[in-house]
Amino acid sequence: MTDETRSLPRQPGFGSDNVAGLSPAILQALAAANEGPMPSYGADPISRRVEEKLCALFEREVAVLLVSTGTAANALSLALFSPPWGAVLCHAGSHIENDECGAPEFFTSGAKLVHVAGTDARIDPEALRAATRLNKGDVHGVQPAVVSITQASELGTLYSLEHTRAIGAVCREAGLPLHMDGSRFANAVAALGASPAELTWKAGVDILSFGATKNGAMGVEAIVLFDPARAGELAFRRKRGGHLSSKMRFLAAQMDAYLDDDLWLANARQANAMAARLDAGLRVIPGVDVNGTVEANMLFARLPQPMIDGLLAQGFRFYTDRWGAGVVRLVTSFATREDDVDALLAAARVLA
Amino acid sequence: MTDETRSLPRQPGFGSDNVAGLSPAILQALAAANEGPMPSYGADPISRRVEEKLCALFEREVAVLLVSTGTAANALSLALFSPPWGAVLCHAGSHIENDECGAPEFFTSGAKLVHVAGTDARIDPEALRAATRLNKGDVHGVQPAVVSITQASELGTLYSLEHTRAIGAVCREAGLPLHMDGSRFANAVAALGASPAELTWKAGVDILSFGATKNGAMGVEAIVLFDPARAGELAFRRKRGGHLSSKMRFLAAQMDAYLDDDLWLANARQANAMAARLDAGLRVIPGVDVNGTVEANMLFARLPQPMIDGLLAQGFRFYTDRWGAGVVRLVTSFATREDDVDALLAAARVLA
Amino acid sequence: MTDETRSLPRQPGFGSDNVAGLSPAILQALAAANEGPMPSYGADPISRRVEEKLCALFEREVAVLLVSTGTAANALSLALFSPPWGAVLCHAGSHIENDECGAPEFFTSGAKLVHVAGTDARIDPEALRAATRLNKGDVHGVQPAVVSITQASELGTLYSLEHTRAIGAVCREAGLPLHMDGSRFANAVAALGASPAELTWKAGVDILSFGATKNGAMGVEAIVLFDPARAGELAFRRKRGGHLSSKMRFLAAQMDAYLDDDLWLANARQANAMAARLDAGLRVIPGVDVNGTVEANMLFARLPQPMIDGLLAQGFRFYTDRWGAGVVRLVTSFATREDDVDALLAAARVLA
Amino acid sequence: MTDETRSLPRQPGFGSDNVAGLSPAILQALAAANEGPMPSYGADPISRRVEEKLCALFEREVAVLLVSTGTAANALSLALFSPPWGAVLCHAGSHIENDECGAPEFFTSGAKLVHVAGTDARIDPEALRAATRLNKGDVHGVQPAVVSITQASELGTLYSLEHTRAIGAVCREAGLPLHMDGSRFANAVAALGASPAELTWKAGVDILSFGATKNGAMGVEAIVLFDPARAGELAFRRKRGGHLSSKMRFLAAQMDAYLDDDLWLANARQANAMAARLDAGLRVIPGVDVNGTVEANMLFARLPQPMIDGLLAQGFRFYTDRWGAGVVRLVTSFATREDDVDALLAAARVLA
Repeated sequence: MTDETRSLPRQPGFGSDNVAGLSPAILQALAAANEGPMPSYGADPISRRVEEKLCALFEREVAVLLVSTGTAANALSLALFSPPWGAVLCHAGSHIENDECGAPEFFTSGAKLVHVAGTDARIDPEALRAATRLNKGDVHGVQPAVVSITQASELGTLYSLEHTRAIGAVCREAGLPLHMDGSRFANAVAALGASPAELTWKAGVDILSFGATKNGAMGVEAIVLFDPARAGELAFRRKRGGHLSSKMRFLAAQMDAYLDDDLWLANARQANAMAARLDAGLRVIPGVDVNGTVEANMLFARLPQPMIDGLLAQGFRFYTDRWGAGVVRLVTSFATREDDVDALLAAARVLA
Repeated sequence: MTDETRSLPRQPGFGSDNVAGLSPAILQALAAANEGPMPSYGADPISRRVEEKLCALFEREVAVLLVSTGTAANALSLALFSPPWGAVLCHAGSHIENDECGAPEFFTSGAKLVHVAGTDARIDPEALRAATRLNKGDVHGVQPAVVSITQASELGTLYSLEHTRAIGAVCREAGLPLHMDGSRFANAVAALGASPAELTWKAGVDILSFGATKNGAMGVEAIVLFDPARAGELAFRRKRGGHLSSKMRFLAAQMDAYLDDDLWLANARQANAMAARLDAGLRVIPGVDVNGTVEANMLFARLPQPMIDGLLAQGFRFYTDRWGAGVVRLVTSFATREDDVDALLAAARVLA
Repeated sequence: MTDETRSLPRQPGFGSDNVAGLSPAILQALAAANEGPMPSYGADPISRRVEEKLCALFEREVAVLLVSTGTAANALSLALFSPPWGAVLCHAGSHIENDECGAPEFFTSGAKLVHVAGTDARIDPEALRAATRLNKGDVHGVQPAVVSITQASELGTLYSLEHTRAIGAVCREAGLPLHMDGSRFANAVAALGASPAELTWKAGVDILSFGATKNGAMGVEAIVLFDPARAGELAFRRKRGGHLSSKMRFLAAQMDAYLDDDLWLANARQANAMAARLDAGLRVIPGVDVNGTVEANMLFARLPQPMIDGLLAQGFRFYTDRWGAGVVRLVTSFATREDDVDALLAAARVLA
Repeated sequence: MTDETRSLPRQPGFGSDNVAGLSPAILQALAAANEGPMPSYGADPISRRVEEKLCALFEREVAVLLVSTGTAANALSLALFSPPWGAVLCHAGSHIENDECGAPEFFTSGAKLVHVAGTDARIDPEALRAATRLNKGDVHGVQPAVVSITQASELGTLYSLEHTRAIGAVCREAGLPLHMDGSRFANAVAALGASPAELTWKAGVDILSFGATKNGAMGVEAIVLFDPARAGELAFRRKRGGHLSSKMRFLAAQMDAYLDDDLWLANARQANAMAARLDAGLRVIPGVDVNGTVEANMLFARLPQPMIDGLLAQGFRFYTDRWGAGVVRLVTSFATREDDVDALLAAARVLA
């Protein structure tokens, strides 16, 4: 926030879903968890309850490790499956490649992220098949070790159930584990209608970063490991990475409330609905060109430069300088209200 | 918590200060921070305010990086100062050596923790002087790179102002930076009466892990860097380690409240006072032998085995199996009440 | 060598320049160095002489560290200049990206190799300029740290003096150091006619992997550091990587003989001349299509599949399965004789 | 070599066994290997022969990876068996702890070397048993992962067959693999009379750094892996560490000659015999106090300071400043002749 903008009336932030605060239920859960002493490091009853809830949600035994950031969830998950000489097969536009300052390389002790082609930030199964064979057994090259997909993707697109299954099938065929970066997994489930189980292990996913932070929590992500036998190694890696919270109950309490009464789904639906409302409103504004289909809670559109400048000057917040001239990214969250959307649309119409 | 103990009345936990919950003021601060959108990743006004408060507290310009665990604060701090071929000079009984599953080695890319002798888990300045010269310039040996001391120590002992200055002087002489693991820094300040500035940079400390988690926060520690020029590198290391919280305002809010009205000091004083009360009460129980002087919020004592067994059976919680036969560790926190102490003392007297 | 081929008459190997043995002068130098005791780890007089010779060759003060493989020379050089959160800017077709099993990632503790476009395995200066600005200062992205070019490239092409200077100028402008992977540096110098100084530091190169192994030595590469002040760090990194030879005199003796009487240049000229002879001979064989211009000691050509099969069946050795259907790579070395070339050409003509 | 000493007559070096050159047979083997093209990276027939010879020597199937330094052999071996959160249990006086600049930490991605007590630089089996249980399963502590012993030790002492078996038994009991740093393994075998198989896998050793460099080779050590199934991972680690020699035949040729006609044993016997001769001669010189029993090719003795100064002034070479006042270390090698020993003894007698 610059000095200039501080004096402006606070406008809704479409910069990212992480500019939102907490769902009230999650805040209440923190207060409720603050009752007397409780064992530290995850030996508390709330942590146990969260694990049970996630087993129920995913319809099978899973191991759960809570961490406070998506970067940690992703990097730890990849480190479990890739040796230092491994290749992490991912899209060039993925979050793990572009936005984590090399955290996957750090946690894997130097694995290489190898790009797999595909449109709209999604891996193409055929391109993946070729990549899984690259350098196989050749001591001069890094070895395909794990595949990582992002659901929803960095462009807000989704892997359909069919697409996910196709990726999973290639992984099975190649004997490679499949990681899903699900920092916006809730938005994907809300949009796709398939169950969490169908979209993950039933389709071939081995490990999931199940995000809550962007969708109403304060800072908690669950690493959901569908083969619980490997949880031990992950526990050492988490501790060593400084991600074993001593007062774990407060991470657990967030996740607990997030899972209660399908808050996670309700929040995601609200975010998705607001993106759809933005989409519908923007499409009819002259000079605005929305990119592709809006599938979850993120929208890319080309706007006239004076409209961009005008919106920013009025205090609206979004990113605009990274995807080509005139392209803006608008992200909605559980906290976005119809009024927020309508205010942006009204301002844009005036500037059209 | 085992099934057996679950049915017992909840008894106070003396296992660690991290079994306590949050100070009410910190919980309120979280609620207060939950107001509308706010820039992520530390660009929010609460983060700025925390930095200002810590500059004021330490009476100089400092750089502040918030992280959610003490392990992260320590490991990142050491990584800033030790190259991979460095030696981190520390006490054999230090937390960084024993309780972080190799996190310092991970974040430094493989530095070596080299032990420096000293009584009561505190480094002796003369032993340190010798250690700073070890292998200096010899390509076959790791190079002394940084010194780390723990305030308060793992045995609950304190580095007096004089002791800290003596350590600082050796560091200056050797050209080595000095790190202070201050996960219980508040308890040390409360006990020693010297100012935070006196106990740190004025005595030669270059970087401090300023803990809040054990003393009433949910999960936040401030890396306080007394030479702000090096903060840039630390920011990359923090992100790469998965420790850059997206909704940073909620880490900041905890620290903000922690610093308000000297809550940090008040909490530490309460914890220290409860340890003193325990000390006074235990010393007069026949068969109990309290080790040394209780300086902060931690007490070690040799108890008759039946007394230990009896207390545990009644639901009191503490560690007992790590420091020799019959030795227990009792840790108090801001949340420990006189009643809690008195209940333990009463039970012990009955078992004596 | 399969069982089948073992019974064939030994045919010349065009698979790589590393299938050749040693220059006789280098073998003699090893014998000559084997005289009585000599200080270990590089404190011997031969090592000193090599450093002096390389200072003379490069017309300035340089620091020299000898290692036994090109992988080590490259990875250590990059580690000197890239922090773990750095980006190593290089061509997608570079050796460091494809043929070192992640050694640069290992030695840098997890830096990321970021691809810069350009034809014929050479970086384009304009593409480089854009890459040097990528994520600059953004804590979410790895930071441009060092540029690496390969001279001669993996496709046998050369960076002309002008091209090198253009790359160097972009590096200077961006404040980034420039590494040259010179495992075939001798072939480049022999072909380009410019001096070693002109092709390196005068054009902006900061560190050079000066190769000898592929050009007549047994196993020695010199890391030539044009700013000797940073050699200390490199020495620790070398030792830590297991690359400080105890009987260093024998690495030094190889390099010493390699530099004597311009053996390095004479060997490279022979290799280049044999590639030119191959080129001239192949171009006139019907059905053979030599790719581009042959600039150093490596040639790519499309051959009819029966010709490929026939040559391999007769015991000729080369790689053929990596650059598209029917494309073979032929590499010559100092040890390749006119007879070897003519034998291949004769066999190919028969198979045409 | 300082300027002063350069003008002195060359005197025998007792500083280390790595100040010696090559066995003539090894030099000849290098010349013999220099015949025409040969497949690179270990696919040559000499490498195959070496593997066969080592299988024969150790009386079982083994996997062999050749590298050029002992540091690499040790660090790679440990990395195979220790995860980053592992503890490498070793003696505080071991080479891996003191003389490799943290190479084990580098190759293991940050494991911790944990000291096990024992006299004369040898691990005590009972102390080892306790160490194998340290922190077991506790996520806060590094996990016992591999045990490493040095044969012969840094003090020149040996693990007897019984001692080795006792260590091996503790490892088996704890489920931990056992590494033997055998940079002077030949000297141990020569002295102990037991077979290589008895002293290694039959006693519980899982991986051996089988040294040749200190005992007559130029620079080659064999990693001998008694469970060949794990060789694949080791191959990737070797390449990634820059230790896969392209012209591998020349490493193999050294090892080949080293194993021929028991050259390795003959060389070690000569070195051991010369140490015994030194021992016998020194013990009868007034004022000289030889430490303990001389078991292999290394001797520690306390000498009067004028004798030390006088010997150094006459050009004799040895280390003297690391083991307390007046203590010198004298190391003999295959190249040490009786004359060399007698010259030192004569000079010492004069200075007595």
